Amino acid sequence: MGNELLSEMGTEIIIPVCAVIGIAFSLLQWLLVSFVKLSPDKSSNGKKEPLIEAEEGGNDHSVIIRCADIQNAISEGATSFLFTEYQYVGVFMVAFAILIFLFLGSVEGFSTKSRPCTYDASRMCKPALATAVFSTISFLLGVVTSVVSGFLGMKIATYANARTTLEARKGVGKAFIVAFRSGAVMGFLLAANGLLVLYITINLFKLYYGDDWEGLFESITGYGLGGSSMALFGRVGGGIYTKAADVGADLVGKVERNIPEDDPRNPAVIADNVGDNVGDIAGMGSDLFGSYAESSCAALVVASISSFGISHDFTAMCYPLLISSMGILVCLITTLFATDFFEVRNVKEIQPTLKNQLIISTVMMTFGIAVVSWIALPVTFTIFIFGQQKEVQNWQLFLCVCVGLLAGLLIGFVTEYYTSNAYSPVQDVADACRTGAATNVIFGLALGYKSAIIPIFAIAFSIFVSFSFAAMYGIAVAALGMLSTIATGLAIDAYGPISDNAGGIAEMAGMSHRIRERTDALDAAGNTTAAIGKGFAIGSAALVSLALFGAFVSRAEIEVVDVLTPKVFIGLLVGAMLPYWFSAMTMKSVGSAALKMVEEVRRQFNTIPGLMEGTTKPDYATCVKISTDASIREMIPPGALVMLTPLVVGIFFGVETLSGVLAGALVSGVQIAISASNTGGAWDNAKKYIEAGVSEHARTLGPKGSDAHKAAVIGDTVGDPLKDTSGPSLNILIKLMAVESLVFAPFFATHGGLLFKMF
Amino acid sequence: MGNELLSEMGTEIIIPVCAVIGIAFSLLQWLLVSFVKLSPDKSSNGKKEPLIEAEEGGNDHSVIIRCADIQNAISEGATSFLFTEYQYVGVFMVAFAILIFLFLGSVEGFSTKSRPCTYDASRMCKPALATAVFSTISFLLGVVTSVVSGFLGMKIATYANARTTLEARKGVGKAFIVAFRSGAVMGFLLAANGLLVLYITINLFKLYYGDDWEGLFESITGYGLGGSSMALFGRVGGGIYTKAADVGADLVGKVERNIPEDDPRNPAVIADNVGDNVGDIAGMGSDLFGSYAESSCAALVVASISSFGISHDFTAMCYPLLISSMGILVCLITTLFATDFFEVRNVKEIQPTLKNQLIISTVMMTFGIAVVSWIALPVTFTIFIFGQQKEVQNWQLFLCVCVGLLAGLLIGFVTEYYTSNAYSPVQDVADACRTGAATNVIFGLALGYKSAIIPIFAIAFSIFVSFSFAAMYGIAVAALGMLSTIATGLAIDAYGPISDNAGGIAEMAGMSHRIRERTDALDAAGNTTAAIGKGFAIGSAALVSLALFGAFVSRAEIEVVDVLTPKVFIGLLVGAMLPYWFSAMTMKSVGSAALKMVEEVRRQFNTIPGLMEGTTKPDYATCVKISTDASIREMIPPGALVMLTPLVVGIFFGVETLSGVLAGALVSGVQIAISASNTGGAWDNAKKYIEAGVSEHARTLGPKGSDAHKAAVIGDTVGDPLKDTSGPSLNILIKLMAVESLVFAPFFATHGGLLFKMF
Repeated sequence: MGNELLSEMGTEIIIPVCAVIGIAFSLLQWLLVSFVKLSPDKSSNGKKEPLIEAEEGGNDHSVIIRCADIQNAISEGATSFLFTEYQYVGVFMVAFAILIFLFLGSVEGFSTKSRPCTYDASRMCKPALATAVFSTISFLLGVVTSVVSGFLGMKIATYANARTTLEARKGVGKAFIVAFRSGAVMGFLLAANGLLVLYITINLFKLYYGDDWEGLFESITGYGLGGSSMALFGRVGGGIYTKAADVGADLVGKVERNIPEDDPRNPAVIADNVGDNVGDIAGMGSDLFGSYAESSCAALVVASISSFGISHDFTAMCYPLLISSMGILVCLITTLFATDFFEVRNVKEIQPTLKNQLIISTVMMTFGIAVVSWIALPVTFTIFIFGQQKEVQNWQLFLCVCVGLLAGLLIGFVTEYYTSNAYSPVQDVADACRTGAATNVIFGLALGYKSAIIPIFAIAFSIFVSFSFAAMYGIAVAALGMLSTIATGLAIDAYGPISDNAGGIAEMAGMSHRIRERTDALDAAGNTTAAIGKGFAIGSAALVSLALFGAFVSRAEIEVVDVLTPKVFIGLLVGAMLPYWFSAMTMKSVGSAALKMVEEVRRQFNTIPGLMEGTTKPDYATCVKISTDASIREMIPPGALVMLTPLVVGIFFGVETLSGVLAGALVSGVQIAISASNTGGAWDNAKKYIEAGVSEHARTLGPKGSDAHKAAVIGDTVGDPLKDTSGPSLNILIKLMAVESLVFAPFFATHGGLLFKMF
Repeated sequence: MGNELLSEMGTEIIIPVCAVIGIAFSLLQWLLVSFVKLSPDKSSNGKKEPLIEAEEGGNDHSVIIRCADIQNAISEGATSFLFTEYQYVGVFMVAFAILIFLFLGSVEGFSTKSRPCTYDASRMCKPALATAVFSTISFLLGVVTSVVSGFLGMKIATYANARTTLEARKGVGKAFIVAFRSGAVMGFLLAANGLLVLYITINLFKLYYGDDWEGLFESITGYGLGGSSMALFGRVGGGIYTKAADVGADLVGKVERNIPEDDPRNPAVIADNVGDNVGDIAGMGSDLFGSYAESSCAALVVASISSFGISHDFTAMCYPLLISSMGILVCLITTLFATDFFEVRNVKEIQPTLKNQLIISTVMMTFGIAVVSWIALPVTFTIFIFGQQKEVQNWQLFLCVCVGLLAGLLIGFVTEYYTSNAYSPVQDVADACRTGAATNVIFGLALGYKSAIIPIFAIAFSIFVSFSFAAMYGIAVAALGMLSTIATGLAIDAYGPISDNAGGIAEMAGMSHRIRERTDALDAAGNTTAAIGKGFAIGSAALVSLALFGAFVSRAEIEVVDVLTPKVFIGLLVGAMLPYWFSAMTMKSVGSAALKMVEEVRRQFNTIPGLMEGTTKPDYATCVKISTDASIREMIPPGALVMLTPLVVGIFFGVETLSGVLAGALVSGVQIAISASNTGGAWDNAKKYIEAGVSEHARTLGPKGSDAHKAAVIGDTVGDPLKDTSGPSLNILIKLMAVESLVFAPFFATHGGLLFKMF
């Protein structure tokens, strides 16, 4: 129907093929990782390679057994936590699904009659009840896909961590490849899976909806809501789990008892390692899947009311999915640069290799986007924006995607600058440790605040450019551009906690300190890339949430969102407060859970004889239980705050106030999210800077155990909940409230604003 | 001309009379304070009263001499700093005044011809050049009044501190009265002075403007801009000064050398006490004067385009000034409750007495507002809001002022709840010190975030109610309502640092520990009331800045500020980032200056023999110089950021983007300001809670020097820049950008938005 080069048939083939390629590549990586054997009978592929352990006279057999045991303990802990979490969240999700059905069904009083379309009243669309049914289905699909993404990620990570440790005996390059491949398994599985499920859902829904694309893509937004809702609980629950264990383990182990990190004598050590997998892996997987699902849904729903949707131009309509398909191919080639085309030979090459992944994927993706824009878009098309029309050229849309992609890269680099200890900001923070923890905290907070400046300008610039070219659709595809290399981004992100765990296992298995040095090097590089990943997540969240906000406003039939009306302004003010409320809840949760953990760890050290001497084993299970209970209990209030706010505001105050709340939460939340992530990252790396003592300056601050180092540890501990719990959850907050408002928009537009209607 | 009960003549008499009464009352209080003699020849009024020193065999003569010496040192340090500060700021202000003249003059090309009025094109108004000239004059008047307010406040405070110390020998009640009276001197002088200057300026300007009230009150807004600009530099400069000295003195003195606070052996001790006077007194005086001037100007400029302005109803026009006049009378009676009607007999009565001041003044003011609304307003009048008309009843405007007044009280109480160690939030923070500084910081940050919730709802409610009744005029008078009891608020606020200094002087003069206990009790009560005062300042800043924003939008002839246009949205996003940028600058400044101070104090302890033994005097002057230099140098960048942002945005991006920036900075800044102030206050009082050891729980954490106490000291030090530098400066940021935009609105509307015009 369209006049683009790619036929509808071509689109129908390309998308699933790319998704399947992604899944196949992911399985291939898994296969390669599985060649590292965790059973002591034979080494990787028959021929024995030289091992450090062997050189130092260690017993290869017993080391492997120990590693396997520890890995099993971590994996079991993580699996059992996730199952518990999914049970609780499952109940919530089913309840919420019923709410979606009831609220959306009630829009037209559960009528099964067709009704005039919202945007084109001359045509007839499917009944509101259909939207209710299909939104509920796609919501549940989103939840399930998110659960699968997080769970599989965790499984892969716990499958890979001991293997990374064992490979570290052969050299840092070998260990790097195992960790990176495992990260890639997760990255590709998640990206491809998300794409495939979305694609299949669209095609199945189309069987019912036929020509009613407006209704079809309105229902599809439920997929984004489902993905994001699950992500919220995953991030918050996982974040509380991991940081309660981490803070608790550090406060007693490192500070009071002066034993190293991950020492097997520390009762909280297993909980800490489990936490990495449920928080940084499963939580982050769900989070980025949510971002991906939402940005796709936002782009689709805006496109469905453009000329693509009206003229039923399937290829152009699927432009967002084609971008993601291209992303999978680009990331596949990018991965080969790290694993096959080049080899990491020493520690110094790790960080550049990871950074090159970002650059290579961005450069290739720029061409990829050009190709997709050229073949999948008509030369000119029309976007409808708040009742007005806008002509868009295909090259303009290309620029929209690119500006998002490049802004993401810029945000990544700025994040690196502020959180890597190779640059002056973190070194200044480390230097402030000289005068104690207080100045360290003051400098760290100031660094976080400052680090928001350039990312905010980058986001503002992207918004301005993409909006000028293609209104809200431009912003949606800019967000998609930022997430188009998600497979690579996730691979790098997941690589970090895997290396961290590998180091933990090496320590717990009592392996040589040289192995620990290698895994530490892997971990340090992962730390910075994790911060970069968070930068991407926040930047894309801001764009996605704005696009969703725009779609919501269109759908709720609001003409303008005028700040100068009190309804909107009070929304703006209260919305800007929500990220603070949410952060207060999550930080306090981590604090309280950590206090409990500290008491338990102290109790064990004080009451279990022989624990400090290493002759008795600590009671790991109690610590795991404390983290599990605390995170399950504490994730409910912040989760409810985010999930219920749009409902309460929409029902009682109406869509104008809700618009204000969304805008306020967006502009305020993005700042706190960036500041919190970067402050935490900087403190972490300032501590590592002092510990590593690489430069002359660093050595004047160290060594471990010096006053400056102790001050740095305090900063690091403060930063833990900021960077791993409250900070990364905030971008879910802003996206989730927007997508939820969009899903419920028909209901709010019909029945909302009770309070103002009453007075 | 109006139909109200109070004649124009009555108005012309009442306002200056009330102002003069305020000034007379202030001088009377000064006279009463001066009865406490600082020369050793004779005691207060001939008859000797029993003194602790005498009981303990101390030498009365030498103690008085020492106190007088220390007071002189503090006073000289503060005077010399303020003169230096005023020199630098003076240059900046003159440059800015020239800018105002040039920019506003250029609106009509410096034409001296009359032009059609902005809001009523059928009438002729004075030329734009007149607005330029008179705005510049009123700007300079605002600056000078602010300087005088701050400087006199400092003079009174340094006059009173040693007197408070000496009176503390006679009993806590006597000391309280001296400190409180001195605070009242400042409060009344500032409120009355601000009112009088504004009133005289209006009357003088009227000689030229005649019937052109639109131009008259447009020019008057320069007064608010001047007051606020000076306040910004005063707050930032003073804040950096005081906290650099405080943090520096504590880090070496308390933490490293284990000597008490204010110990004369500490080289930074004089700088620390000077800091209290230039930061907490002069800075705060300028700040609250700025708030007062701006809220009056906002109300006047909005009123000038209502039916009052058009029908030239002088009494109704002066409603804001009459409210302030009534406020002076109400506060005068309120003060007598603390100083004459009742007597503070013991330590426990201090806090309730101060709290009662707030309650008494609020209750009486409610009646006062009713009276003013009844006699000074017509029964019905018309407000113009963005091109529409709105009928307002006088009782509705009464409610607007009341809702502001009551919201202020509510914010005050919430602030008290979160920052006083009598309640569980601070006790929880203190409890978190058990597991170290990290959990203390985490809990403190979470507390600050949480403490924003209710104040934000209170502000939102006030905005909604007052806007619904009387649009932007309602919001302006609500802000005025919150500030109507400013004289009492300031008296309480100034009382804190005076007591703090009194304690410092007692310590430095080597007086009995019982005197120190008394001044500590005075100080502790002052700490909480200071936090309450900050709550008021922030709440009123939010309302004032919204009212100014509304006036700006009217003046710039913008119809709507639609969040969904990219111009506005990027403004909103960047505006929300500005408070972070500003906080990063000020916090880093305090940190760097403190580092320098620490090095100097360490150097003196290490190189001056006999310093620790108390046989040699430290070199106080060098520390004073470090604080002075640092604050003068470091106040420029954040000051420039705030002053230049509206200009840059207005000129290059235009009024829509500027509107976004103002709204973003407002909704984001108010949260950080509340959080930062309360977090800092909570840490301070958590430390004091452990030190005082009043309850069973507190004693398990103490005593001074315990691990928990050390952790609490770290929290307190982190909180210092938050609560005394970046936090309170933020409310100036949001107000100042709004008033500056309003003053420059004619210029931006004519010549602004260059960048968008080019593309």
